[in-house]
Amino acid sequence: MPTAKCMNPVKTTEFADAFRTFLPLPGALDPPLEEALRHVLDNPGSLVRPRMVFQVATAYGLDPVPAKELAIALEYFHTASLVFDDLPCMDNALERRGVPCVHFAFGEAGAILTALALINRAYALCWRTMSGCAQTSQARAFAYIEQRLGIEGLLNGQSLDLHYATLPHTRETTEKIARGKTVSLIRLTLVLPALLGGAASREIQLLERIALYWGLAYQMVDDLKDVLGSTAEAGKTVARDLLLDRPNAASAMGVQGALERLMRFIHFGDRTLAHLVRIRPAMAFLEKLRNDLEEELVRVTRNASTIAEGVRS
Amino acid sequence: MPTAKCMNPVKTTEFADAFRTFLPLPGALDPPLEEALRHVLDNPGSLVRPRMVFQVATAYGLDPVPAKELAIALEYFHTASLVFDDLPCMDNALERRGVPCVHFAFGEAGAILTALALINRAYALCWRTMSGCAQTSQARAFAYIEQRLGIEGLLNGQSLDLHYATLPHTRETTEKIARGKTVSLIRLTLVLPALLGGAASREIQLLERIALYWGLAYQMVDDLKDVLGSTAEAGKTVARDLLLDRPNAASAMGVQGALERLMRFIHFGDRTLAHLVRIRPAMAFLEKLRNDLEEELVRVTRNASTIAEGVRS
Repeated sequence: MPTAKCMNPVKTTEFADAFRTFLPLPGALDPPLEEALRHVLDNPGSLVRPRMVFQVATAYGLDPVPAKELAIALEYFHTASLVFDDLPCMDNALERRGVPCVHFAFGEAGAILTALALINRAYALCWRTMSGCAQTSQARAFAYIEQRLGIEGLLNGQSLDLHYATLPHTRETTEKIARGKTVSLIRLTLVLPALLGGAASREIQLLERIALYWGLAYQMVDDLKDVLGSTAEAGKTVARDLLLDRPNAASAMGVQGALERLMRFIHFGDRTLAHLVRIRPAMAFLEKLRNDLEEELVRVTRNASTIAEGVRS
Repeated sequence: MPTAKCMNPVKTTEFADAFRTFLPLPGALDPPLEEALRHVLDNPGSLVRPRMVFQVATAYGLDPVPAKELAIALEYFHTASLVFDDLPCMDNALERRGVPCVHFAFGEAGAILTALALINRAYALCWRTMSGCAQTSQARAFAYIEQRLGIEGLLNGQSLDLHYATLPHTRETTEKIARGKTVSLIRLTLVLPALLGGAASREIQLLERIALYWGLAYQMVDDLKDVLGSTAEAGKTVARDLLLDRPNAASAMGVQGALERLMRFIHFGDRTLAHLVRIRPAMAFLEKLRNDLEEELVRVTRNASTIAEGVRS
């Protein structure tokens, strides 16, 4: 057990190192672009996603080197999507991963070129992993990347998100956006490494369902945090999403309705994961993620109860 | 001869159709994103580039279907780079290919998502072409795409271009920027289809040189047009590039110096093309492009002489 505890920081450093070094910066790079790229590569976020990709990939028999390249590739795609999301013409954010947003520190053009550099490298890393896999897996994997990142997936979700003010503020709309933005990237994280490892179609189906339930659930926890958290902090009932007319499941269907739906997603996820683990026991590690999701939910609702008590007293 | 004349419009329609249809728009696409994409796909520009890719690819033995997919893929990459270039934070252009820029008609976020959709589709189309080629060609081709589009190529050129005001205004700087921005895409156009067709390394070397000479030459013709053309039109000696402190070879080394250097590039290009055609006669079609370049140059200088005469009289 002490070994397991020691492993975690080592693993984090390992993935942080990979995140920093898998996009080598050439000597002749224009210094402002180099600075912007270093800013992103030196501030990697939690790295939960690439660790998950790595674990799924190795559970399906990929070697550690290509598994790690795929893991960092998907994290580069994800990071690029955040750099674009944060731009003034999208979410207009100022801070990301505890540091100023790229566009805030290096200008909008610098942020766009940085994000494109990440995407360019991500495709190259994906291809390196894929080139060692069976030809049929390659074809399925490339089509899958296109669908999840393109206009059937992430880009459509982002576009709907930007036009939320013009759409009906219903559960259907918020879930459509979450399927595009959040679920697409979780599907890539869970399904792509399994596809490349030659997983059976029954396993892919189960992974797809887990990605859908957990993706929607994670987005709802985030939405609840926005509604419940900001009430506590700002001492006002209007949350940021509501204020800015942003999609939020808890606003669209009420806190109670969102909580009930979220619990159902976790329950469906549990049943689906149990099926998957019976077929492939190595996937049991996903239980940790499921528990993290529940812990996060408990924190959010405990916070909400404290506020409610505060209001009553 | 009449047949050859009839062929051209047919071919143009064929590539325009491919440009419009090789990125299928799903039914569930967010309408504003669909509109922005249609705006780009319905206004394809001259399509010289994809026709060139197609001719090189078939000259090196690729089948017409994957050759055309590769041709449209590279045109999507190129178009995406123009959509980004035109953004307010970059060149701040208003019109492109005879219609309003995407960001001007559909907002900056819409333009960014449109460009990303083109890039996403371009990678998928490249992969389709590549998957039918030899494994060694695939590896070289993917590395080549990464280098030309990434921080060693186009992205570095674009970053230098944006920071031109802070760089020494010399021939070396303008050519470094042109190598990044213009030459990178011409290298992809000429070299990538040959790589995928298994061209010998001597042929690749010759194609690399032609791409360099012609890329720099095309950029210089553009720069001369800016210096000489705008003088005629605006009735003032200050050109747009000079006014906005943008890289321009003719400003950096003088019109006479630029013209001499340009003639040398065309001469070197001719010699290199002659070598290549001796090895692979099917590449003789490139002479047309060389002649187009010279015709363009003659037009620009004739215009300049007319102005000079006008000033003298």
